[in-house]
Amino acid sequence: MSAATDASVDLLGEARRIAEGVDQLFEEALANRCDGRDRLCAAMRHAGIGGGKRLRPLMTVAAAQLFGIDEYRALRAGAAIEAIHVYSLIHDDLPCMDDDDLRRGKPTVHKAFDEATAVLAGDCFHALAFELLADERTHEDPFVRSDLVVELAKASGIDGMGGGQAMDLAAEGQELDLNAITRLQQLKTGALIEYAVEAAVIMGRVMPDGRARYRGYARNVGLAFQIADDLLDHEGDEQAAGKRLQKDAEAGKATFVSLLGVERARAQAQMLVDQAIEHLHGHGEEADLLRAIARYAVERDR
Amino acid sequence: MSAATDASVDLLGEARRIAEGVDQLFEEALANRCDGRDRLCAAMRHAGIGGGKRLRPLMTVAAAQLFGIDEYRALRAGAAIEAIHVYSLIHDDLPCMDDDDLRRGKPTVHKAFDEATAVLAGDCFHALAFELLADERTHEDPFVRSDLVVELAKASGIDGMGGGQAMDLAAEGQELDLNAITRLQQLKTGALIEYAVEAAVIMGRVMPDGRARYRGYARNVGLAFQIADDLLDHEGDEQAAGKRLQKDAEAGKATFVSLLGVERARAQAQMLVDQAIEHLHGHGEEADLLRAIARYAVERDR
Repeated sequence: MSAATDASVDLLGEARRIAEGVDQLFEEALANRCDGRDRLCAAMRHAGIGGGKRLRPLMTVAAAQLFGIDEYRALRAGAAIEAIHVYSLIHDDLPCMDDDDLRRGKPTVHKAFDEATAVLAGDCFHALAFELLADERTHEDPFVRSDLVVELAKASGIDGMGGGQAMDLAAEGQELDLNAITRLQQLKTGALIEYAVEAAVIMGRVMPDGRARYRGYARNVGLAFQIADDLLDHEGDEQAAGKRLQKDAEAGKATFVSLLGVERARAQAQMLVDQAIEHLHGHGEEADLLRAIARYAVERDR
Repeated sequence: MSAATDASVDLLGEARRIAEGVDQLFEEALANRCDGRDRLCAAMRHAGIGGGKRLRPLMTVAAAQLFGIDEYRALRAGAAIEAIHVYSLIHDDLPCMDDDDLRRGKPTVHKAFDEATAVLAGDCFHALAFELLADERTHEDPFVRSDLVVELAKASGIDGMGGGQAMDLAAEGQELDLNAITRLQQLKTGALIEYAVEAAVIMGRVMPDGRARYRGYARNVGLAFQIADDLLDHEGDEQAAGKRLQKDAEAGKATFVSLLGVERARAQAQMLVDQAIEHLHGHGEEADLLRAIARYAVERDR
């Protein structure tokens, strides 16, 4: 599909490097406060440090390579996005939501600590995201910082992730079709993945008429990731995933796999990856990491 | 204490006008989405519209009068702060936190809807705060907008309200002294009240060396409000308050009243109000609304 090669990209090495950078930023933000907040700090470190694929920060840093953005700045924006992702996982796992005991191979926050601490830890990660993002170390231009904040708030709020979660709650017992599932997933998980690329586009001051292709890339990768998640959920093993699987099937919720079947779902995900890579045409090796991420979306085993 | 008079200030009228402005901004943000998010929108309107004293937006608009800030802009910043306050109330009322059935005279969100929707409604108010704040309609200068965002994130996160909540959880079964209670309340409720004034100071581009007095005003008013809350909690009636009272006493938690007794607590609150007003010396009638708010802190009956 693409003429460019990414044989030279060490995806896992890059992912590990970015994950360490995110851990470092979270460590700095979550140094223990010895005054009654130690349990909250410990809960936030439990949830936020040393786990997860760090897909979103990786995408931000990878997209930043297209526009010559300083990597530390991109990493800070990526860490802000990961902070939103971590908060959403903590709240999703609560007994009143998905009621999960296991996350990233560890007990969920409300299991390792307690429910009240889990609610607060999620809330404080939510605030931390905006504190990281609006800081001048993330970008020297305050116009850019304000844009980053507004767009992240939209991607995480009622017209993004939060709204998608609400649709997901409302979907229980409903028979959703492919369009409805696609729309739900675009809000619930797609909006934040799109924002991970959009953040670099904003930081790179890409003109509005040049932004559509990057949005297309991110949308396709986000959807491919979700379909691959459904496939892994259908076939995968919980040990490798580090979380409970087949919850949607048990709850009678439609997934891409239940609607399309395994083979068509797999083909659809591959087509989305090919399209994502096609959106990067004209870019040379500076886009190789983004291409590798797109391929990884469907080739991973967890 | 103060030479200025505020006989001309119609505090209740101003408060009503600001409350209507906040309701209007929330109405615009929470127009129904007819696609599975209607329950979330309804829960957010239930929690956010048509209730509460709107103390924080009132303080922002009142402080904005000192610096000639456009009232609509101040109102938007105030609504952002109120969005943080509303999210914190929704989450505080959850069964795993304070487990309250009544708030502002209505059933709490998890009672009127369900727990999962309450968690999401709080999360979406949290995001809405930053969306309102970082918008160019709140301030034309992006430096100011970025500052507003960073300071709000600090005031609501682990070093502000969220951290204070964690201290409050940790305080159960502990014997806190007056210093510890004061510190806890400064984070839990004080930080956001301080920010309500700080937002106007930031928007007014007050030089750093001129900011201390406004911070002093806000800190004193915040603490006076909390002591008055403890007094109302001790003596008041639940019907007027619109929420359950004497929870701290039942949980064996220290309050300003349990530590100081009624008379000394009342005297302390009055002294804080006098000091708050003293911080406004040199200002003329443009500070009358702030003076009236300070007096109201201890004169209110709910």
